[in-house]
Amino acid sequence: MIKNTKVNAAILIIGNEILSGRTQDTNTSTLATWLNSIGVKVQEVRVIPDIEKTIVNTLNVLRKENDYVFTTGGIGPTHDDITAESVSKAFGLKYEIHKEGYKILEAYYKPGEFNEGRQKMIWMPENAELILNPTSGAPGFSVDNVFCLPGVPSIMKSMLGGLKNKIVGGEPILSQTISLKTVESEIANSLTEVQDNNKDVEIGSYPFFHAGKLGVSIVLRSENQSRIDECNLQILNFVNKKNIEIVDR
Amino acid sequence: MIKNTKVNAAILIIGNEILSGRTQDTNTSTLATWLNSIGVKVQEVRVIPDIEKTIVNTLNVLRKENDYVFTTGGIGPTHDDITAESVSKAFGLKYEIHKEGYKILEAYYKPGEFNEGRQKMIWMPENAELILNPTSGAPGFSVDNVFCLPGVPSIMKSMLGGLKNKIVGGEPILSQTISLKTVESEIANSLTEVQDNNKDVEIGSYPFFHAGKLGVSIVLRSENQSRIDECNLQILNFVNKKNIEIVDR
Repeated sequence: MIKNTKVNAAILIIGNEILSGRTQDTNTSTLATWLNSIGVKVQEVRVIPDIEKTIVNTLNVLRKENDYVFTTGGIGPTHDDITAESVSKAFGLKYEIHKEGYKILEAYYKPGEFNEGRQKMIWMPENAELILNPTSGAPGFSVDNVFCLPGVPSIMKSMLGGLKNKIVGGEPILSQTISLKTVESEIANSLTEVQDNNKDVEIGSYPFFHAGKLGVSIVLRSENQSRIDECNLQILNFVNKKNIEIVDR
Repeated sequence: MIKNTKVNAAILIIGNEILSGRTQDTNTSTLATWLNSIGVKVQEVRVIPDIEKTIVNTLNVLRKENDYVFTTGGIGPTHDDITAESVSKAFGLKYEIHKEGYKILEAYYKPGEFNEGRQKMIWMPENAELILNPTSGAPGFSVDNVFCLPGVPSIMKSMLGGLKNKIVGGEPILSQTISLKTVESEIANSLTEVQDNNKDVEIGSYPFFHAGKLGVSIVLRSENQSRIDECNLQILNFVNKKNIEIVDR
């Protein structure tokens, strides 16, 4: 299933707290940045509530359409943590105590502290592979191409290192940013021309207002540095002609 | 189509810069918080790339499954701003110059500054309704139940006031938070019991690490304050029995 050149992923954020606006999601940006660096392109993100049917259905769509799916949230000890059970149902697998996970948490907690609430955290789909947690003990897990991580950003981030050998990326996606002291409408036509001449390079244009400065960042993205360089030259060409100042951003 | 009691919405974030991790989305949280305050519940968020086919297909799913859809991003003057044209295609509408929008921008810019790049911003689906922009001139627009807003957070936020009369919400969703100096596993069973006895109240449990303090915030959400009060009492009951300290958060 894993393609060698283009490797795609979806991120599935599970949690009512994101949908209510109470919590600002930062896991998308952390995961996407990391995935890009190992040659995996995020092609879709979805945020869904803690509803079993929704998790099962969404997961069954995403895992077929993507090389990898990364979920965050819903693997803690409380009643609203239903990711592991939902993943089991999505794959038609038994939901049971993970023996290796049990041993890890039994050793992690002081005697008597590995209570029923905490034991819920090692109920997983049968034969799940563990994703070790260097921060707070309770592991994540993967089944086939679905990787389930916790929602707490610092813990989630600390677990990515342990995933490296499990994810096979394609060519890393390179990017280059050119920031200009201008407004988008001044460069729109020239930029369209560069994009039309270089359809294989993703060219994004993003206005910024930063430290009192107004400008536009042009972002070039491709697996191929020489294609980025070529676009860069074409952009510098019209930037010079128009006498636009290049700025740091 | 608008239901009176429960009103749902989806948020569709359009932009490669979010999927690459380059930009941290904050529009979801801003929109969700505002929608909640007017009785609209966000049931799904999707982030998708600047690809016409993807925008058209996703929009056609979301607008049928939700009372409202809010898009952000892709309505500027550059080649990667393809939201308005994609919305036209999704609805099978002509993509044309919006006469009222044209007048607004013609008056907004100095003579000679309303160039071709800027004129792209008032190409919209035929008969679109404008959403006025008090910050930077260029309006958003709506077609049927789809509302298209810009991606720049400060501009997007400034346009919400003008939407108030166009969105008919249900009962506002009330919420109450109880923060405890404990860990989730200590209260998981008691909280499950409260949830089982009060299935109509959404009870979320969120661990926090804040200013060196570790604890759990329990969030109760319902349209009905008396149901929240009842849950709150049941929670305080087990909190007292367990001698758990209530903290500010």
